[in-house]
Amino acid sequence: MIGLFALIPLLEFTMSTFQVLEFVRRNHDRYVLELKEFLAIPSVSTLPEHKPDMQRAADWLCRQMTGLGLRSVETIPTAGHPVAYGEWLDAPGKPTVLIYGHYDVQPVDPLNEWISPPFKPAVRVEDIYARGASDMKGQIHAVLKALEAWLKKGSLPVNVKIFFEGEEEIGSPNLGSFIEKYKDKLGCDVVLNADSHILRPDLPSLVYGLRGLVCLEVSVYGPKSDLHSGTFGGSVHNPAQVLCGLITGMHDGEGHVTLPGFYDKVRVLSQEERAELARFPHSDEEWRKMTGAPQLHGEEGFTTIERVGARPTLEVNGILSGFTGKGFKTVLPAKAVAKISMRLVPYQDDKAVEEQFNEYMRKNAPSTVRWEAKYLAGGPAVLLNCGTAGMRAASAALEATFGVKPVFQLEGGSVPVVSMVKAELGVDSVLMGFGLPDDNLHAPNEKLHLPNYYRGIEAYIRFFELVSRQD
Amino acid sequence: MIGLFALIPLLEFTMSTFQVLEFVRRNHDRYVLELKEFLAIPSVSTLPEHKPDMQRAADWLCRQMTGLGLRSVETIPTAGHPVAYGEWLDAPGKPTVLIYGHYDVQPVDPLNEWISPPFKPAVRVEDIYARGASDMKGQIHAVLKALEAWLKKGSLPVNVKIFFEGEEEIGSPNLGSFIEKYKDKLGCDVVLNADSHILRPDLPSLVYGLRGLVCLEVSVYGPKSDLHSGTFGGSVHNPAQVLCGLITGMHDGEGHVTLPGFYDKVRVLSQEERAELARFPHSDEEWRKMTGAPQLHGEEGFTTIERVGARPTLEVNGILSGFTGKGFKTVLPAKAVAKISMRLVPYQDDKAVEEQFNEYMRKNAPSTVRWEAKYLAGGPAVLLNCGTAGMRAASAALEATFGVKPVFQLEGGSVPVVSMVKAELGVDSVLMGFGLPDDNLHAPNEKLHLPNYYRGIEAYIRFFELVSRQD
Repeated sequence: MIGLFALIPLLEFTMSTFQVLEFVRRNHDRYVLELKEFLAIPSVSTLPEHKPDMQRAADWLCRQMTGLGLRSVETIPTAGHPVAYGEWLDAPGKPTVLIYGHYDVQPVDPLNEWISPPFKPAVRVEDIYARGASDMKGQIHAVLKALEAWLKKGSLPVNVKIFFEGEEEIGSPNLGSFIEKYKDKLGCDVVLNADSHILRPDLPSLVYGLRGLVCLEVSVYGPKSDLHSGTFGGSVHNPAQVLCGLITGMHDGEGHVTLPGFYDKVRVLSQEERAELARFPHSDEEWRKMTGAPQLHGEEGFTTIERVGARPTLEVNGILSGFTGKGFKTVLPAKAVAKISMRLVPYQDDKAVEEQFNEYMRKNAPSTVRWEAKYLAGGPAVLLNCGTAGMRAASAALEATFGVKPVFQLEGGSVPVVSMVKAELGVDSVLMGFGLPDDNLHAPNEKLHLPNYYRGIEAYIRFFELVSRQD
Repeated sequence: MIGLFALIPLLEFTMSTFQVLEFVRRNHDRYVLELKEFLAIPSVSTLPEHKPDMQRAADWLCRQMTGLGLRSVETIPTAGHPVAYGEWLDAPGKPTVLIYGHYDVQPVDPLNEWISPPFKPAVRVEDIYARGASDMKGQIHAVLKALEAWLKKGSLPVNVKIFFEGEEEIGSPNLGSFIEKYKDKLGCDVVLNADSHILRPDLPSLVYGLRGLVCLEVSVYGPKSDLHSGTFGGSVHNPAQVLCGLITGMHDGEGHVTLPGFYDKVRVLSQEERAELARFPHSDEEWRKMTGAPQLHGEEGFTTIERVGARPTLEVNGILSGFTGKGFKTVLPAKAVAKISMRLVPYQDDKAVEEQFNEYMRKNAPSTVRWEAKYLAGGPAVLLNCGTAGMRAASAALEATFGVKPVFQLEGGSVPVVSMVKAELGVDSVLMGFGLPDDNLHAPNEKLHLPNYYRGIEAYIRFFELVSRQD
């Protein structure tokens, strides 16, 4: 692993870079106004009622890209939500950077836990609060502002192609075929994926591994309709209880997942890599405070950093059965449904894990109920090469911007597009984004730390400069 | 037990009774029109938005009672929904029958599973479909029509006092203090509780035992807000999974409830009573078909009839956590909530069982979460004396109406008012109603079998006549 962490020496920046950075520093207020406009569009990809908002968000991006001076700007339809595309290819002989982002956001429920409405962006102290602020409209906007600053000064040091999808939060169901179809159009030397984060406002980081994902919806069916729990309770198996039992059995007493064969392909951490991960700046107590949980909990035999980065997990994302309104209703429910997702690590296969799940269900579901498991989304885990030109440029850009070398980390989340571009375009991604671990991603009161956002713009500016100097 | 089942010989009815019955048979069509009007009022007691409908339903009953010729008709306020009251005391020297019913109904969700809207009563073949048809507006109306028929012929053979409450479906929280406050007003010789059912359209039955109830809402809290399951999954205990584990542990592998001390006070069935219960007309396969479950399931060592009548149970009535909409959202939920009810049998104490539940939680909830269990409703189990004058009159009235002797049964449901009137007024109830086991109580497509409803009116007419002849 040591080799992966070797960084290029910090490069000096040209006079031009400093002028570009100067431009950025004079424009912070305008940037926030623009960002608020973008964040106000409720582009929730999973909810059909927001379909028109998806188009609005894509159109907003196209207007931005056209305004910057990008060419061939258009929304490209897919079987789902459109892709917003733009390019600037006037730097012959220079590398081409393909920039990825997603303009869709997560749903907002529970809405009543938001301090300010999710689609009325509000600045409080140094943070901007809105759904999508950190995941990832803020980061999309930061990339665009970096390009804008270069172009205001005359030109970009590299060629760029930009594509923003609208389906990341629903598992990018149409992105694979999109990349395949536009393989030539998207051809590039470096992929910059802005859907990432750093560790602390004063500590940048670069992700070299991402967990994969399998999302399933499991339904357990008992009686044909809800029954009176007095009349029938005790004589019919309660599907909510059956589902609870099945879920409980998916972990053993030590927090290991019990799906048959689940760990067979899991990459074993070397002592060397475990030692590297142990140097990662992390405090269990700070992590616990950030989550608000009374106590941390996970697979025995692994540290928190290993648990969230290097080990696969199984989590219930949601469960629903019977009467859940105010008061009570003494029913024995007809069915129970759970959304369950598994985070995968190299070299687990998402299809194989789905089959392991079904095998578990076949072995353990009692004959007193019927069940089905529906595949919702998924993708493999990713391990990135830290020695690529893009990765070295990103590392140097972060060091120049933050004043400290970035740390390398394994990321717990999944970014399906990383494995898609690797498979279709043959290019490793650089994951460089500026969210923070406490940004409340996928939760109420999502926020973006504005100093990070400004530094993000500067880091992207330097990244384009540094990539242009490498082969 | 044998003594309990001894019935009085079938009595001959007076000429007057036959005239009254004749009146009923000429009025079936009008009855159904009136019943539809009553069923169309959405008197869902548990939902605050239906508060005005509760008053409308009570007022509707008062208009009916006034129209019949009852006296002192009024709605009496309580801390919750009002009681509708009426009386007729012009039969000096005759017994006074206190008639109980409830005009509130269960919520209607899942609404999309109703074939016709729950508050647009629809007759299909021989059934009338609507929320509350069987539980229990149909039965309230049948009692009123029995009184109407007698009064059309001149007078009632007994004195009657009627009180219809509006909070049965929420556990009758204000009925105990109401009965205590109006103890003298409600004084009586016999209580007729119409909130019951028979076994089959051709087989009447009388309930001699009712299960008690404890309803709780259990909440398990983990992180302070929903977390991204990629970033945090594997490092924090998932409250949905903790709740599933706790629920699973509430039963052992043989279907026994594991709450500490749960069975300590449970009445042990004698061999004699088990033999009586075994004679009960029941087929496991018919019961299974009625529920639609793939297979029956319950506590080992007991028959279905014993499981639903003589044994206590614990059922999850509802469970909710995390994201449960369309698509998926990869969150690690902040909390999970379950509604859990326990059906009790003599001589379990509802307060003691609540404490057993809390004791189980204290022993088994891990320190990785916080939890609370909120008491929603409850009441003790009831065992009735089958030899009272009221019980003998009911038995004879059913035999005369259906042509077969009723069977005696232990009921799985709970009717809190039965123990309340016993405690305050010192009178055992007669549970005589005309629902059927497949009436979809508390479920979509609730219905009432119209031939049963007509026979119910006739049985009540005979009951009043027979009670008047006893001391």
